[in-house]
Amino acid sequence: MPRPSPLNRADFPYFWQISTRWADNDVYAHVNNAIHYQFFDTAVNGWLLETGILDFGGTDTVFLVVETGCTYFAEIAFPDTVHAGIRVSRLGSSSVTYEVGLFRNDADSAAAQGHFVHVNVGRDSRAPAPISDANRAILQTLQSAAS
Amino acid sequence: MPRPSPLNRADFPYFWQISTRWADNDVYAHVNNAIHYQFFDTAVNGWLLETGILDFGGTDTVFLVVETGCTYFAEIAFPDTVHAGIRVSRLGSSSVTYEVGLFRNDADSAAAQGHFVHVNVGRDSRAPAPISDANRAILQTLQSAAS
Amino acid sequence: MPRPSPLNRADFPYFWQISTRWADNDVYAHVNNAIHYQFFDTAVNGWLLETGILDFGGTDTVFLVVETGCTYFAEIAFPDTVHAGIRVSRLGSSSVTYEVGLFRNDADSAAAQGHFVHVNVGRDSRAPAPISDANRAILQTLQSAAS
Amino acid sequence: MPRPSPLNRADFPYFWQISTRWADNDVYAHVNNAIHYQFFDTAVNGWLLETGILDFGGTDTVFLVVETGCTYFAEIAFPDTVHAGIRVSRLGSSSVTYEVGLFRNDADSAAAQGHFVHVNVGRDSRAPAPISDANRAILQTLQSAAS
Repeated sequence: MPRPSPLNRADFPYFWQISTRWADNDVYAHVNNAIHYQFFDTAVNGWLLETGILDFGGTDTVFLVVETGCTYFAEIAFPDTVHAGIRVSRLGSSSVTYEVGLFRNDADSAAAQGHFVHVNVGRDSRAPAPISDANRAILQTLQSAAS
Repeated sequence: MPRPSPLNRADFPYFWQISTRWADNDVYAHVNNAIHYQFFDTAVNGWLLETGILDFGGTDTVFLVVETGCTYFAEIAFPDTVHAGIRVSRLGSSSVTYEVGLFRNDADSAAAQGHFVHVNVGRDSRAPAPISDANRAILQTLQSAAS
Repeated sequence: MPRPSPLNRADFPYFWQISTRWADNDVYAHVNNAIHYQFFDTAVNGWLLETGILDFGGTDTVFLVVETGCTYFAEIAFPDTVHAGIRVSRLGSSSVTYEVGLFRNDADSAAAQGHFVHVNVGRDSRAPAPISDANRAILQTLQSAAS
Repeated sequence: MPRPSPLNRADFPYFWQISTRWADNDVYAHVNNAIHYQFFDTAVNGWLLETGILDFGGTDTVFLVVETGCTYFAEIAFPDTVHAGIRVSRLGSSSVTYEVGLFRNDADSAAAQGHFVHVNVGRDSRAPAPISDANRAILQTLQSAAS
């Protein structure tokens, strides 16, 4: 697969701000590659909590992660601030694919970007469940014309 | 030892703001106890970088951690914002003890508080080294009358 | 407070083996101080699961952490293996204090040691609850003559 | 892209054993999706250290991560033991692509699998550098006929 080009802030309709931590930096003095997925997870679930799609303990269904991926373009390092942009690139009957861009401080070009696929499942059964019409309407607000 | 009382924001001269992450929450749906030490570490080293006492790669000495401790009063949970207050409670010839208070969102009483002891060592030798007068003067600005 | 002396393996009746990870190492190329508390937490809860005192979802009470502390004597670094020894030093009506020693590979002297205080609470109410006689009897097996 | 099928243990020539930790489990009581990348990173760098391709501080070049991805098939949860299998699927002039499979306890089918792309760079310059013939020969030992 060809390596994608970095996305810009204008490609994303929503951002979640994340502070880096001392321990995020590994022996190479930059944020370790696994931490980027904490940023993805935080931005997506933060938005889900904010919109009410997710509520700790209070919803019959939850979203579990079935696939993720990330391309790294530039280093991020503590004490940088990360602005994680998210958009919905695919909305299936029970799954949703987010694209996430991680922007370092004031940079307009993504330091890293990737995808994050959630499947809607019963909280107890963990079997796939259709996304409700109400939630689908909210998720569609993150679908940009460009994606 | 008797359990200490929670400190207030007014007890701290300096704060570092930290965003919580989805993965900070453990199975009890609150920030795991080990994460609090990431917050301590981040606030102290963030301040050291900001004041220039610490510079990645550029200083002959670095501070290593020799003792830490934390008392937990109230739960913190994603997506809370944490305000980590720090003050210097003891300044020895080669070591410095910080007290750290973790404040949840707008709360005035600490959700958790503890101490964090740094020893100044040679970057390569890792042998204790006296804190320079210049750095001592900066560290003293975090010594409050109350501590 | 005077700095404690490192404990030895013989001071502990039970050990939990933990593999270090690449990302545990911070910019100083050793395991970050906050990770030590992940080791404490893992050894204690691992033992609680093994003895049946704790069961995900299946017990009316759970243990929450109210105080922790650690003294660091020597560096641990990936790819070291850590042997976490635990013993019970105090057993109250609703709380239990563990002492934990972290041993690096084949070393007999602790690289770090500390304490970890659990309070038994209702899973839903999160109010302190007496430790049952059955669990108390199990916890007593970790009380050594020396502690 | 179609979802891949889980690989088996026989697909991998080398394994690194990893113990899970209490804090790996998130609110859904399973290992958080970002932790899987800590496992990838640990297995690959563990092998690089073991073979001498990587040496903390002692090599002119280091490998930095430029792309990663993971597909999740089944839950892993503390206190499971993870066996991370690795193989080399592509060996370029300055980059190497690993495939990694995560096997839970005694399971023969991967609970998760993915890829991890390293680029060889100058330790100081961070500019891409050709992989030496000596290291290439070692990396080729992880290329299986099947990949």
